[in-house]
Amino acid sequence: MNSEDYLHIAFLLAKRANSKDIRPNPYVGAIVVDNNGEIIGEGYHQKAGEAHAEVLAINSALIKNSDLSNATLYVTMEPCSHTGKTPPCTNLILAHKIPKVVIGSMDPNPLVSGAKILSDAGVNVEIGIQPNIVELNSTFNINQLNKRPKYVLKAATTINGKIADRHGNSKWISNEKSRAYVHQILRSNADAILTTAQTVIKDNAKMNIRVPDEDAKELNLIIIDRALAVLEVQNKNLGIFYQRNRTKIYLLTDKEYTDELPKNIEIIKANFPEGAIDLSELNELLLSKNICEILVEGGGKLNATLIKQQIADELAMFICPSLLLDNEAINVFNDSEFQSIENSVQLNLTETTQYDNDIFLKYLISY
Amino acid sequence: MNSEDYLHIAFLLAKRANSKDIRPNPYVGAIVVDNNGEIIGEGYHQKAGEAHAEVLAINSALIKNSDLSNATLYVTMEPCSHTGKTPPCTNLILAHKIPKVVIGSMDPNPLVSGAKILSDAGVNVEIGIQPNIVELNSTFNINQLNKRPKYVLKAATTINGKIADRHGNSKWISNEKSRAYVHQILRSNADAILTTAQTVIKDNAKMNIRVPDEDAKELNLIIIDRALAVLEVQNKNLGIFYQRNRTKIYLLTDKEYTDELPKNIEIIKANFPEGAIDLSELNELLLSKNICEILVEGGGKLNATLIKQQIADELAMFICPSLLLDNEAINVFNDSEFQSIENSVQLNLTETTQYDNDIFLKYLISY
Repeated sequence: MNSEDYLHIAFLLAKRANSKDIRPNPYVGAIVVDNNGEIIGEGYHQKAGEAHAEVLAINSALIKNSDLSNATLYVTMEPCSHTGKTPPCTNLILAHKIPKVVIGSMDPNPLVSGAKILSDAGVNVEIGIQPNIVELNSTFNINQLNKRPKYVLKAATTINGKIADRHGNSKWISNEKSRAYVHQILRSNADAILTTAQTVIKDNAKMNIRVPDEDAKELNLIIIDRALAVLEVQNKNLGIFYQRNRTKIYLLTDKEYTDELPKNIEIIKANFPEGAIDLSELNELLLSKNICEILVEGGGKLNATLIKQQIADELAMFICPSLLLDNEAINVFNDSEFQSIENSVQLNLTETTQYDNDIFLKYLISY
Repeated sequence: MNSEDYLHIAFLLAKRANSKDIRPNPYVGAIVVDNNGEIIGEGYHQKAGEAHAEVLAINSALIKNSDLSNATLYVTMEPCSHTGKTPPCTNLILAHKIPKVVIGSMDPNPLVSGAKILSDAGVNVEIGIQPNIVELNSTFNINQLNKRPKYVLKAATTINGKIADRHGNSKWISNEKSRAYVHQILRSNADAILTTAQTVIKDNAKMNIRVPDEDAKELNLIIIDRALAVLEVQNKNLGIFYQRNRTKIYLLTDKEYTDELPKNIEIIKANFPEGAIDLSELNELLLSKNICEILVEGGGKLNATLIKQQIADELAMFICPSLLLDNEAINVFNDSEFQSIENSVQLNLTETTQYDNDIFLKYLISY
């Protein structure tokens, strides 16, 4: 087995964590390998505020009285070098005189310089960046580098880019398997859904997470609701008002509201320059609420806003086998400004999966 | 080897033919197998008006003095039973007392009842319909059953169903590999391109077949040109007016035109009820010109017309990794009539292939 193989084992360990337990931290896995190539310790980061992967891996090796002075530590992300909720992992590595550390991805946090510190202290540091390890932490990386949540734009369209007929009817463009994927993967990975009052009222959907043979799970919901329409009395039975124990509904508005609200509804003040919400102002607040990844399930106008404000990171698109010929049927991106072909937004296709007659396409968007 | 395996060999033989040599006939392959399971004869239909696959296969077995009285004939399509340009194959099979015939697809022509005739004459007839064999002759089957050419609708769109910006600029939405596929497969299989004068004038494309390392090939071009705009003097240098030796430009119009035309330009009278051409009236004429398969490369309006007239058989779609947010950017289907989600056109996805960041989707359309 070579370094890449050992890093892959550490990667598989890292992936065991539940994204919601570790937020806002990254997925990290680590293994300790002795000089015969045997794995003598392993660990992965399981819960924010608790032990890092390196600590768990080293401790599990120490329990067996292993000699670490000839061992190699394989870790999917550069070890931390600063004191956060736990002491720096670099100290532990140096304390146990581990002579070699192989790193699968760098920590984008500029406060972390673990690789340099270890190297300066005489540790043989090998950096072998693995694209799948970097990709696993795309949310963490965006949080750190862009100081904002990661935004995933989800849409289900006809072959010709329509999300509903001209009267707004959209049931059902995508098939059951596609909808299951939305719950099992897209919503499960997200810390909140971002949508609009219009969508919430029209579709009257619960916006929770439903996976076969499991209890429904709640999910934070951020609603762009300038007029606070969802608080109107005729909307009091909307599906989104299910019993929430651990999540909230956040209403984004520029209106003043002084009445008391149920404890799981919170108003966030936002600005709407030229009618479209300015999401960039909310970055810090959302991250402080541990909302690190947002799934956007709104209409064509919100989709266009996210692209124009250059904060949509991924597009998760189901192309479904139907056609709505009608020009007035609703577009998945709805904007009235002229855009030339030379200025069209360019994306990178990173995944294609077929669900019966639907095709799922995942794109990365760079600006 | 079982019957399916032998039929597959006959299928591979059938596919060797060049579609343009055999039109309007189907692809047919045949093999003769002796009672030890050895292939003793093979053939495929190579040119319209010349020998059928069964004749070539039987003759190639006879040359080797093979005994056919214990042999089996595997043929991809039901043997003909009527006298066309060649005598019925059923006669030949009976004359050589071949005791067993295995058939991979039925001839949709109701004049053909080869399977019944052979069976009535005491031949053991086994019918094992193979989907890939049926699919190979989809053009022939549509020609026979619907008495019209097969129409393949081709489009290259942004992720959100746009084919050009609002000023009509579309260069280049699809990538080089996708465009190569259009020439190598879609145009090469077609007997004509159907387009509009507007597209021809705007794009000023040649509309021929260009394959790397081969000379450009000419291709019939059918232009919906009610005003006969391409004949106007300012358009005399359009790319479509390349030197044509074996193909024509057909202009569809309801205008009278009495001037003399170059011999490779022909006017076809058509009707335009409510502004959109009625293609169904032209079916017989087009088939009589041996135009059995048409690739449609026009704009959104023509695309919508073909769907509404229920003659588009396949949709060959490239989804390309760009977004044009502008609502006024040009839609791949352009129609002003209301269509509800319940009445959306349903398609079947039959192929998905990735060409770098483009994804090619092929759909069958049934009405």
